[in-house]
Amino acid sequence: MDFDLARQLAQENGTKIVLFVMDGLGGLPHPETGRTELETAHVTRLDRIARESACGLTVPVALGVTPGSGPGHLALFGYDPLVYNIGRGALEAVGIDFDLQPSDVAARGNFCTVDGEGRITDRRAGRISTSRCTEIVDELRRIPLDGAQIFVEPVREHRFVLVLRGEGLSEEVADTDPQAEGTRPLPAVATKPSGEMTAALVNRFVERSKEVLRDKQPANALLLRGFARRPEWPSVPDVFKLRPAAVAHYPMYRGLARLVGMQALTVGPNLEDSVATLHENWERFDFFFVHYKHTDSAGEDGDFERKVAKLEEVDALVDDLVALGPDVLMIAGDHSTPAVMAAHSWHPVPFMLRAKNTRQDECDMFNEVALLKGSLGTFPAKEALPLAMAHAGRFKKYGA
Amino acid sequence: MDFDLARQLAQENGTKIVLFVMDGLGGLPHPETGRTELETAHVTRLDRIARESACGLTVPVALGVTPGSGPGHLALFGYDPLVYNIGRGALEAVGIDFDLQPSDVAARGNFCTVDGEGRITDRRAGRISTSRCTEIVDELRRIPLDGAQIFVEPVREHRFVLVLRGEGLSEEVADTDPQAEGTRPLPAVATKPSGEMTAALVNRFVERSKEVLRDKQPANALLLRGFARRPEWPSVPDVFKLRPAAVAHYPMYRGLARLVGMQALTVGPNLEDSVATLHENWERFDFFFVHYKHTDSAGEDGDFERKVAKLEEVDALVDDLVALGPDVLMIAGDHSTPAVMAAHSWHPVPFMLRAKNTRQDECDMFNEVALLKGSLGTFPAKEALPLAMAHAGRFKKYGA
Repeated sequence: MDFDLARQLAQENGTKIVLFVMDGLGGLPHPETGRTELETAHVTRLDRIARESACGLTVPVALGVTPGSGPGHLALFGYDPLVYNIGRGALEAVGIDFDLQPSDVAARGNFCTVDGEGRITDRRAGRISTSRCTEIVDELRRIPLDGAQIFVEPVREHRFVLVLRGEGLSEEVADTDPQAEGTRPLPAVATKPSGEMTAALVNRFVERSKEVLRDKQPANALLLRGFARRPEWPSVPDVFKLRPAAVAHYPMYRGLARLVGMQALTVGPNLEDSVATLHENWERFDFFFVHYKHTDSAGEDGDFERKVAKLEEVDALVDDLVALGPDVLMIAGDHSTPAVMAAHSWHPVPFMLRAKNTRQDECDMFNEVALLKGSLGTFPAKEALPLAMAHAGRFKKYGA
Repeated sequence: MDFDLARQLAQENGTKIVLFVMDGLGGLPHPETGRTELETAHVTRLDRIARESACGLTVPVALGVTPGSGPGHLALFGYDPLVYNIGRGALEAVGIDFDLQPSDVAARGNFCTVDGEGRITDRRAGRISTSRCTEIVDELRRIPLDGAQIFVEPVREHRFVLVLRGEGLSEEVADTDPQAEGTRPLPAVATKPSGEMTAALVNRFVERSKEVLRDKQPANALLLRGFARRPEWPSVPDVFKLRPAAVAHYPMYRGLARLVGMQALTVGPNLEDSVATLHENWERFDFFFVHYKHTDSAGEDGDFERKVAKLEEVDALVDDLVALGPDVLMIAGDHSTPAVMAAHSWHPVPFMLRAKNTRQDECDMFNEVALLKGSLGTFPAKEALPLAMAHAGRFKKYGA
């Protein structure tokens, strides 16, 4: 839904909406059984909720498009992921709780290994440990740079974030990462004239980093990509008149939630922790995004059985979400991560919305096949929040 | 469908299309039986037509959006209701058969009650009778106003329409209705500089009206809202090359039909009257919009049983529409009005299209659940007329 329309229709009332996101929820059949992860799992509570819900499947970005975590979540927050796109560097920075300012430019960094000729032999520097990454980063951030303040922050293993802060910085700088081995890192080049000063600063930083990295084998060089600023987007409170909170443990999802104006609450890694946090904060907010990571991790690892087990773990606790008594409970995924693909995929994602005044349908189980019988059909994920707003009585009538 | 495309494809032929609109058609399950109004009603003829039709559900405006009568009908006439929006004042004026001119500005008026301090104590003036409203309006329209001709027309109970006619009038005037009691009516204020002259005229009219209303307790003041001009839209004859007629008894729907270039035929309030009017005018037109109001009225009143009875009343006569032999018969609704909500709602609306060359499907009954199995799926209501045009052989091939 267009944000101007949403702003025009949205009204406050006392209702509460919970968006529960199982990361990488959707799956594909196991070659031996012909059943997906959800069809295999024993999820009787989710099945019961399906019978009480309007059911369907969401398309996160567009038919055939495999979303990253950013677009997958932004769509569920009501943002068209083809319009509201965030650069990789900015996503990486907000994803580690870095307080990115509007004028900052962030890039994603990789340590890599280069040979005597300067050619890349390992783009991931043997996946050095996170603690080693932290040590090296600590030296890099002491590099003095005229014209901008620099921040270098460890992420995980060989990955870090570089942030430049100063006047006149631009994201119009091409990657120094050639994304291939056997070739040299590229110099930073401006993609528009406005990027020239920033490119020059980056090149000076890279040049100085060589002295630091010379003795840090296998992390003896670095690659930068995805130069980006923090996007300035309309916020969920502004557009939908909601007081939104994120109940997410992993920094990436907390960062995404903050980008759209949610308050990121402190919470542990497990679903029990999320339920406890919901209880503690129930009165303070009227929209809760609850993130569950483990389904995606199992899918990414290609571990069908573990993904089944994680779905059953959710099933064991899902009635705790129902028991909170939200006016609208959405059970959704940001994208599919079929274990048989061991990767994100483009397949539509299981979805159900439990509220009063839902249209009944013949969907009686929560899985990819049964949900095709749902009254919501297969629909764009960005329409999920408008649907929830309607069911919560938070949208006025359109037109006389 | 984009109107440029429709104009390019449309061709005349001898076929006839009937669009039968049951107002507020869609429903929700009764809490005791779990069955909607349509599932409860005995509608064997509609069920048979469903087996002969391409079936589906329409989304009037967008997912989660509850339409007013205007957007709900405009969509079925092929107009994107997010593009073709009509202001409340203009809709109210055309809705009482007022011949609104392109340069007129219309506002919806309410009589209200104010106390000795001028504060509103009843926004609806105790819902005075329509005849009393007519008497008061008769005095108001004699108010002389330099700079514009004024028309004041009764609508129903405490509601009336004010129309200003003259040079340089503008709809850029904010409501004088504060939409709250305990506060004074607002002065008319221009929302853009171009509205200043009109706002001044409105304020002079309101000032003069005080003398008339002083002794009209409880209707001792008036409120105005929704200042709007008549929209100038492409017409159905122009875009779709149809000769369209409206068979609608209620002024609002006649007005909407005329706004898109239909001829509004004289007809009584019941479906028998509509069938008779269709017979009389069958040769004169090739598109007929037939409006049936009573399903919506019952839904709005929260009267589940009466809505069921009204659906059965339609079922008893629907074969008279089939017997006319239209090349395409659409059975549709402008929006859902579930009796359990006693209000318009956002839920998709039952739809079927009976014609030769329809795609078969497994939908064998005309209700919200069975229609989910239809070959048309859940689709935007504004695409219904293009679909009908295709089935009527009235669209040429696109491209070589």
